[in-house]
Amino acid sequence: MARVVVAVMPKPEILDPQGKAVLGALPRLGFTGVTDVRQGKRFELEVEGDATPDVLAAVEKMAETLLSNPVIENYTVSVEQADR
Amino acid sequence: MARVVVAVMPKPEILDPQGKAVLGALPRLGFTGVTDVRQGKRFELEVEGDATPDVLAAVEKMAETLLSNPVIENYTVSVEQADR
Repeated sequence: MARVVVAVMPKPEILDPQGKAVLGALPRLGFTGVTDVRQGKRFELEVEGDATPDVLAAVEKMAETLLSNPVIENYTVSVEQADR
Repeated sequence: MARVVVAVMPKPEILDPQGKAVLGALPRLGFTGVTDVRQGKRFELEVEGDATPDVLAAVEKMAETLLSNPVIENYTVSVEQADR
């Protein structure tokens, strides 16, 4: 059993209204020093067995076809300890 | 300039309909071997200067008060290289 994490973020050139809303709210809540905020998605997948290269290749494919919209989003795939 | 990442995930005991929808879609797309999917949010914050303990403490506070709902979500704060 392994946990594979897929992070999906809007591409840099894509407007991110949710991130901008957070950025605008920070000073009103007394937080300073943050110059930009981007909001994306995070998926945690539990997979059978170990995170072999084959498994990671399959997750890459899932990220590309189901979890992200490659026109407007970038994704990264990483492996995480399952028992955190 | 540093990039601080806040990951916000639904607590294990909280229903996650988005994650379940992804889990249900995977076999229909030909993907097998995934036993669970959880969907959460990821925030990338660009902060002035370095990610000092003070900065990270402030981001923890942002995560608790603005970026997550502590009743139903857990969050983790981590530092990332800005130039990836």
